[in-house]
Amino acid sequence: MYELGVVKRNIVRADRTAADALARFGSATVHEAMGRVGLMKPYMRPIYAGARISGTAVTVLLHPGDNWMMHVAAEQIRDGDIVVAAVTAECTDGYFGDLLATSFLARGARGLVIDAGVRDVRDLTEMGFPVWSRAISSKGTIKATLGSVNVPVVCAGAWVNPGDVIVADDDGVVCVPAAMAVATAEAAAQREANEADKRAKLAAGVLGLDMYKMREPLEKAGLRYID
Amino acid sequence: MYELGVVKRNIVRADRTAADALARFGSATVHEAMGRVGLMKPYMRPIYAGARISGTAVTVLLHPGDNWMMHVAAEQIRDGDIVVAAVTAECTDGYFGDLLATSFLARGARGLVIDAGVRDVRDLTEMGFPVWSRAISSKGTIKATLGSVNVPVVCAGAWVNPGDVIVADDDGVVCVPAAMAVATAEAAAQREANEADKRAKLAAGVLGLDMYKMREPLEKAGLRYID
Amino acid sequence: MYELGVVKRNIVRADRTAADALARFGSATVHEAMGRVGLMKPYMRPIYAGARISGTAVTVLLHPGDNWMMHVAAEQIRDGDIVVAAVTAECTDGYFGDLLATSFLARGARGLVIDAGVRDVRDLTEMGFPVWSRAISSKGTIKATLGSVNVPVVCAGAWVNPGDVIVADDDGVVCVPAAMAVATAEAAAQREANEADKRAKLAAGVLGLDMYKMREPLEKAGLRYID
Amino acid sequence: MYELGVVKRNIVRADRTAADALARFGSATVHEAMGRVGLMKPYMRPIYAGARISGTAVTVLLHPGDNWMMHVAAEQIRDGDIVVAAVTAECTDGYFGDLLATSFLARGARGLVIDAGVRDVRDLTEMGFPVWSRAISSKGTIKATLGSVNVPVVCAGAWVNPGDVIVADDDGVVCVPAAMAVATAEAAAQREANEADKRAKLAAGVLGLDMYKMREPLEKAGLRYID
Amino acid sequence: MYELGVVKRNIVRADRTAADALARFGSATVHEAMGRVGLMKPYMRPIYAGARISGTAVTVLLHPGDNWMMHVAAEQIRDGDIVVAAVTAECTDGYFGDLLATSFLARGARGLVIDAGVRDVRDLTEMGFPVWSRAISSKGTIKATLGSVNVPVVCAGAWVNPGDVIVADDDGVVCVPAAMAVATAEAAAQREANEADKRAKLAAGVLGLDMYKMREPLEKAGLRYID
Amino acid sequence: MYELGVVKRNIVRADRTAADALARFGSATVHEAMGRVGLMKPYMRPIYAGARISGTAVTVLLHPGDNWMMHVAAEQIRDGDIVVAAVTAECTDGYFGDLLATSFLARGARGLVIDAGVRDVRDLTEMGFPVWSRAISSKGTIKATLGSVNVPVVCAGAWVNPGDVIVADDDGVVCVPAAMAVATAEAAAQREANEADKRAKLAAGVLGLDMYKMREPLEKAGLRYID
Repeated sequence: MYELGVVKRNIVRADRTAADALARFGSATVHEAMGRVGLMKPYMRPIYAGARISGTAVTVLLHPGDNWMMHVAAEQIRDGDIVVAAVTAECTDGYFGDLLATSFLARGARGLVIDAGVRDVRDLTEMGFPVWSRAISSKGTIKATLGSVNVPVVCAGAWVNPGDVIVADDDGVVCVPAAMAVATAEAAAQREANEADKRAKLAAGVLGLDMYKMREPLEKAGLRYID
Repeated sequence: MYELGVVKRNIVRADRTAADALARFGSATVHEAMGRVGLMKPYMRPIYAGARISGTAVTVLLHPGDNWMMHVAAEQIRDGDIVVAAVTAECTDGYFGDLLATSFLARGARGLVIDAGVRDVRDLTEMGFPVWSRAISSKGTIKATLGSVNVPVVCAGAWVNPGDVIVADDDGVVCVPAAMAVATAEAAAQREANEADKRAKLAAGVLGLDMYKMREPLEKAGLRYID
Repeated sequence: MYELGVVKRNIVRADRTAADALARFGSATVHEAMGRVGLMKPYMRPIYAGARISGTAVTVLLHPGDNWMMHVAAEQIRDGDIVVAAVTAECTDGYFGDLLATSFLARGARGLVIDAGVRDVRDLTEMGFPVWSRAISSKGTIKATLGSVNVPVVCAGAWVNPGDVIVADDDGVVCVPAAMAVATAEAAAQREANEADKRAKLAAGVLGLDMYKMREPLEKAGLRYID
Repeated sequence: MYELGVVKRNIVRADRTAADALARFGSATVHEAMGRVGLMKPYMRPIYAGARISGTAVTVLLHPGDNWMMHVAAEQIRDGDIVVAAVTAECTDGYFGDLLATSFLARGARGLVIDAGVRDVRDLTEMGFPVWSRAISSKGTIKATLGSVNVPVVCAGAWVNPGDVIVADDDGVVCVPAAMAVATAEAAAQREANEADKRAKLAAGVLGLDMYKMREPLEKAGLRYID
Repeated sequence: MYELGVVKRNIVRADRTAADALARFGSATVHEAMGRVGLMKPYMRPIYAGARISGTAVTVLLHPGDNWMMHVAAEQIRDGDIVVAAVTAECTDGYFGDLLATSFLARGARGLVIDAGVRDVRDLTEMGFPVWSRAISSKGTIKATLGSVNVPVVCAGAWVNPGDVIVADDDGVVCVPAAMAVATAEAAAQREANEADKRAKLAAGVLGLDMYKMREPLEKAGLRYID
Repeated sequence: MYELGVVKRNIVRADRTAADALARFGSATVHEAMGRVGLMKPYMRPIYAGARISGTAVTVLLHPGDNWMMHVAAEQIRDGDIVVAAVTAECTDGYFGDLLATSFLARGARGLVIDAGVRDVRDLTEMGFPVWSRAISSKGTIKATLGSVNVPVVCAGAWVNPGDVIVADDDGVVCVPAAMAVATAEAAAQREANEADKRAKLAAGVLGLDMYKMREPLEKAGLRYID
């Protein structure tokens, strides 16, 4: 249920080993391993290419044009967390810049996922503080209205509970429910184990049609080859 | 006419020399040389900057959320082809990743143009396999419904016949009908021949107003200079 | 008032020292220093990352698909200017490429801000000519209809008078009215003077909650901590 | 947690009296009464003007381009329900038309809220079956992949649990958690009780400035009147 | 192949009886009957609700902001035609208003489908001249550049040849290739023949699950019912 | 220059007769009569069809999610005014509903033009209070930050000074600078005077090609007729 004006201090973070391990697989593999759920909308883009992180979610619920709760959230960050910020209405303002990033880094945050805008992206890039956002904007924000910290939020179409695992890279952002983290890490590892072999075969010119034995089902579905 | 569940094996590819030559001019010059037609919508963006390719189109018609036909298309690729993938409805799912890219590369493909999403973009970037797409998304696809390979398709607003020449770079993607490839390459070469001289003049401070003799037509059109 | 078919030759440019100084602060700080006004919409994006410029505006009013006035504008450029181009309707065509950039550079322009599309972005990147635009497109334009040069324009939602200061970087584009340039530069300098100290504190782990003395107002607003 | 391929038969529906009562207040008042949370994105629009409904949610999780689960959902509908359909990726296909509407109506449904497209809107309008959707599209769907019925879903940015109350009208769609339904109905009633008096005063020319006693806080905030 | 500056006078129109008959089925049924191809993007919306037309396409290729060819097209209209207008780049200008509509009506046109904007929509509504467009805009256009009439065009993502059948209603716009018109009309009639019976069953409370015999395939696919 | 926290009480309204007369011509004709400038973006849509108004602008500058200044603006409204509301960042919140409309009506306002969202649209429709907006949303706003009243604003891409004439109808919204109101009304009347005659000719089957004497210029431009 929605709670406004609330900061939850004790949250149950997902298994640390699994949370840390998921970065290696990337958001696409993790998304597959989960059964194709938990993905944020593809308008969420990294501010610079190449970052790939995973960690446990500290969530923030913000109001449009107001970043007051980001400062409240900073205090709740622990090593290995990723801050996930949702806004109660669509907004592209720049809620976050180099000062907040300095603070988040000092608290142990690995990155920020925000369904709004950020600014100081050149500084953030130099600092190596990765952010996934819907916009980049110089527009600042005020500090007037309470939101919440560590309540469940909907961020870019995904449901995120505090403590869930976030996996983010160039392909997008996935949220893995805390209770599924270990199983998902195992499933992802299994998926990847098969990939090296497949990749070698495909590189050697073997067709997916043969490797995946698709010719028969395609024919059965009615595929016709013409000249 | 639309054909579903069909793979055309023998397509007439555009003149190879012209198809290969067009990359050098880039999509903007080629688009001009064709008379300003054949351009895909500007929402088609490269997954990394700096790639510039041309080649002959192998086309694929896909259903939303279903990439089965991409595997069928792989078999039809020959050296120097570029795969052009259209979807029967708007979709941002990630139809293509590093495994398919490995297969396409092994078959001789120079790149992919897809009016949908792709994933594994960090791997694709490292492999140097260029893609132009409308989205990047971790969202995977299923393999359930037949589309077609090497039928005419509408991709990002452009009509593409199998065998047409595709020119793609940081500015966008242009489709040159196979029958126009040679003439377009000649027209593009002619356009470019004049550019070096113009560039030198402009760099020396000569105004386009004078170089293109625009002052008289502007005055005739009624342009007034005020202080 | 709107004037079509007009080129204003003598414009009052903002104080040169202030205009040049503003780049250093970046668009976000300048936007704050002005009181959070004057910002262009966040759909305006740089064609390459890392550029940060400021300069005085030479404005151009264009018609959709017609870049005739860009050549007229070139003649009005002086050292330290930034061309600001607006279009009378939404348009993504490529109004500007490497030839015009060569001419603009030769005239002393520092960059282009255009509420439409540009092309030849690889060349522009190599030349180091920064552009902020709403689109990248190979689509060329015609030269048939008069617009104006150095009239007030609305560009990407911001009102720009010729001679105003433009500040553009990875975060976006801000327009500082000429009469506010000196005061804004001072205000921005003051904002920045405080930042080094704040950054050091935050890096040391001090929380914004304490540094900005937010705990009391948050409590007053009703913030509750729960476990 | 996400569950795919699951149909939950026994769900706890919100208090019927409260669920039915909320329609009267409309989505805007209900949204205020809840503390400004629970709202779907404003891209959700009614297919015809003037409908205002409330009811308990039966939820459906669909795959892009696949409406198989809509038939599964039909069986779970009881009198007074509203079907809330989410899709695992952005999709505008027409998942729903007059045949499904006939079935839903026969089962007692009051309407449909779907984060995708619908079709047969002229028939639906004539039948008086209200739908809120992100798109209208003739594009049909297949029946190939399992989703779920009566699991928690994110629909147009709002978190909806089966049994929650949905309030939908020309202004948009709000989801009231089942446990908050009674309290929200009371709060909404209270809000509305004050409105008649306020409306009369405003209609008589009394200014909000005076009625809400805003002059002092505005002056305190620094508002200046000039001539 | 693209032809600019060309007007084709003799086009082969689809079978008149089939072309006229298709309106009755509506765009959704026709789209299904064709195998789910030929649909324009769902951003194409009618300017008023309730119109449902079919007819043979007269095509126009326009340049952004230039409606010169609309007047050229008027002469090519015959009784029962629908004008289909494409633009070489994205544009929302108002290319068409009550004067052109008066002319088109006098020539026998049944409506207009345009991948751009229109204006005078109140007049068009009063005249009962239906238009499907991507935008409504007061912005006028110039008459400076040649396009073409009765060449193949891509309109809102659909390939339209002159003489093809257009079916347009509240659900969207479908293009039926002339050679498929008769077969499509037959297939659509067959689809509809079954619908009355299905509708009656569903209205009586029979579930689609049973009527379409879906229970077994759903169980086979792994659907689980829980309490 | 931008002024925040300011209310200008004495503004120079455009000539009343001209301001009132312009509604009759509609936004399209007025836009033409002005030389095709002053138009708001086409995303501005009326909340109900058929309204056509003109009047003098009272402007409001708002912050995202904050409608405090709407109440301040109410006091500045005089008979025949139209309120024009701009926001300092993109926002779709519902800033305005039936209570404010009651107040605006009581003060003599003819309508509202707002580059954000509104709510209570069913009530507003019943009251006959026309609104042009970018969105409809139940989302409420707060009252925390000062904006301004009767300062120049950019609304939906158009520059509006207090006292300018606003013309709004189903086609869109145009702003006529106060100093151009009389001349624009005359030019619009002249345009319309010619239209009745043209309409009659076109209705009789005369082609625009002949009526506007376009055949020669088209031939000169190179138009070819083929069979």
